Amino acid sequence: MAQEIERKYLVKNEDFKAIAARQVRIIQGYLSSVPERTVRVRVKGDKGFLTIKGIGNESGASRYEWESEIPVAEAQDLLKICEPGVIDKTRYLVEYEGHIFEVDEFYQSNEGLVVAEVELQSEDQQVNKPSWLGEEVTGDARYYNSMLMKQPYTSW
Amino acid sequence: MAQEIERKYLVKNEDFKAIAARQVRIIQGYLSSVPERTVRVRVKGDKGFLTIKGIGNESGASRYEWESEIPVAEAQDLLKICEPGVIDKTRYLVEYEGHIFEVDEFYQSNEGLVVAEVELQSEDQQVNKPSWLGEEVTGDARYYNSMLMKQPYTSW
Repeated sequence: MAQEIERKYLVKNEDFKAIAARQVRIIQGYLSSVPERTVRVRVKGDKGFLTIKGIGNESGASRYEWESEIPVAEAQDLLKICEPGVIDKTRYLVEYEGHIFEVDEFYQSNEGLVVAEVELQSEDQQVNKPSWLGEEVTGDARYYNSMLMKQPYTSW
Repeated sequence: MAQEIERKYLVKNEDFKAIAARQVRIIQGYLSSVPERTVRVRVKGDKGFLTIKGIGNESGASRYEWESEIPVAEAQDLLKICEPGVIDKTRYLVEYEGHIFEVDEFYQSNEGLVVAEVELQSEDQQVNKPSWLGEEVTGDARYYNSMLMKQPYTSW
């Protein structure tokens, strides 16, 4: 089972869009949203995915993760039995000094929220921050997608 | 997404064992055990499976079901992050008058419980019951494996 190590930041402005290499629309729901064992169904462009994550460690930067691609039609079926609420966002892939930042711009009940995640090789690896990157929110449960579904950004 | 139509019965005695065609040990846990969306991890002999079921209709005989085989090592990893409690049982496959009955003999905290399930083509299809079959318990949530984990048979 792979360990996922990543840091999450707020995004201050839209400068990242001019240098984004790719973008894709993501619709996702949760079969389980408890932090100890989230089970996520995702339609990402024309593909489907099922992703299972365990609980993070104390810093929130490492979580167990298991993922499998599934037929998109099956993912769309599974979305129908997910918990109420859905995450709808565009993900931009932005390269900066050798790191890939995944920048998520949210819609619907999370309109106005933009966050960036970068994956690291180790928890103490240093990252040079691009100018559009804001406050770090790694480990802040409010920004988990599973939480944004229940307590969306526009309700904060 | 496939519809699963099945009937479940208690088993009165061990006569089924003499005519069982096959048997396999099953260890399983749940990433989600809420009836609206159960997510089950199963190690069945030397194979691994991930199974997702939606809520049943009113009679309890039809439930949405999605299943995928996964590497057994991944299933064993996923069992570690499942909800507390585990189902440990031997499943016997017993043919009777053209139907396959899956008979589950439970161990550990469900010791003493033996149930049989038969899959049907339609909800009104008739089944001839073998002599070792007892009371029908289709739709009785106490006998869902997801419930037996939380409120095991020996605690009834």
